[in-house]
Amino acid sequence: MVSKSQKKLIRSLQQKKYRKQQQLFVAEGDKVISELQAAGLQIHSFFTTKDILTEIPIDKIYEVTEKELKQLSFLTSPQQTLAVFHIPEIKQLIDYQQLILGLDDIRDPGNLGTIIRLCDWFGIKDLICSQQTVDCYNPKVVQASMGSITRVNIRYLDLEDFCVNCSNDISIYGTFMDGDNIYNEKFTKKGVVVMGNEANGISTKIEKLITKKIAIPRFGNLQKTESLNVATAAAITLSEFRR
Amino acid sequence: MVSKSQKKLIRSLQQKKYRKQQQLFVAEGDKVISELQAAGLQIHSFFTTKDILTEIPIDKIYEVTEKELKQLSFLTSPQQTLAVFHIPEIKQLIDYQQLILGLDDIRDPGNLGTIIRLCDWFGIKDLICSQQTVDCYNPKVVQASMGSITRVNIRYLDLEDFCVNCSNDISIYGTFMDGDNIYNEKFTKKGVVVMGNEANGISTKIEKLITKKIAIPRFGNLQKTESLNVATAAAITLSEFRR
Repeated sequence: MVSKSQKKLIRSLQQKKYRKQQQLFVAEGDKVISELQAAGLQIHSFFTTKDILTEIPIDKIYEVTEKELKQLSFLTSPQQTLAVFHIPEIKQLIDYQQLILGLDDIRDPGNLGTIIRLCDWFGIKDLICSQQTVDCYNPKVVQASMGSITRVNIRYLDLEDFCVNCSNDISIYGTFMDGDNIYNEKFTKKGVVVMGNEANGISTKIEKLITKKIAIPRFGNLQKTESLNVATAAAITLSEFRR
Repeated sequence: MVSKSQKKLIRSLQQKKYRKQQQLFVAEGDKVISELQAAGLQIHSFFTTKDILTEIPIDKIYEVTEKELKQLSFLTSPQQTLAVFHIPEIKQLIDYQQLILGLDDIRDPGNLGTIIRLCDWFGIKDLICSQQTVDCYNPKVVQASMGSITRVNIRYLDLEDFCVNCSNDISIYGTFMDGDNIYNEKFTKKGVVVMGNEANGISTKIEKLITKKIAIPRFGNLQKTESLNVATAAAITLSEFRR
């Protein structure tokens, strides 16, 4: 059974405002839920249409019908399980001796989810998002990041302030059409890499703070080829830093 | 005005079966439509809620209300224009002297769209899709590929047959967890790179035909990190071939 107030709470968590207020978010499906749990995230409540296989405190489990779950779910094809988690606190400080990724207003949840997975893959611990970047606890980001969200410290800060306050010995890289060929660069272990908004790229105020402009060369039809998707550009850039 | 038969035709083009039968597909929004047109694709019919700025034969233009366009559109937020195009014939032969990308059952339209953009960026002319790969004229692929679809020759073939029939001097690469570190490889100008299905990777029958297994090294938490998304893995792999 799902109570009215539970239904109301879960539906409200589609919105950033209520996630922030309640410090809760929703994850769906066994795979994502068990990864979040394994990472030590605290479960607030758990809804299932089937037998419970994972270790969840009994007072947090609610057996529901498929119809009820469908009403709660944010997915077009609901899974059999849905969990509400407490948003974790980040306890570690930012490690400026390591590579840091900065996002300047990434709007697409799928892109952010993919970028979080990339950070996890390439061992990037700190991801700094501008305040206008899509919320990482947005249900679509949670589903797309596949548990990687627990292994990357994601902070929402004023990206301009962050860049201004980085010490002078830290390079701030940004990808631009007219930057230096990324394949010719010698990258160091530390630095900040900024990826720009899907439509507009890196904003003017951040561009001023970039100390090193880089570019991924284009090999196709130079006149017509569209820009790369931001997640694929991030993949290539991080790969170049790590290789 | 939109006639009933036009409405029926357009709705039917959401399905591959009817796209194949009619040899037509749908594109939405000025940007994508004008790119397809600029690439020489033939317009079948064009629906718009506004003044026409692009050069479209007058007998193919239908002025529609916003409500009518909404009924035709496949998008959740319809643009002001929608066009039906004829599926173009591929006239060039496969160029075996260049790098070729093969897809082994890519199911997600967004992934295929991103991969088509990557091919365009990296100057890959020939993209060979297994028969089970999502159709490139699927509306979501058309929107995600952003006109790149006109600059890549996309063929749906039996991928196994294709690999078997490649001459012996062409390497067939595939990405695997246990492959050789991609960063240590010396790649040649030609070859076939196969990317596998989102959930299952490269199928057993194709794996047997791979002559060189490669791997993108993981730098994060080795135990837990999820695999890379196929489009980001393709981005890194193609970048390594081209750099």
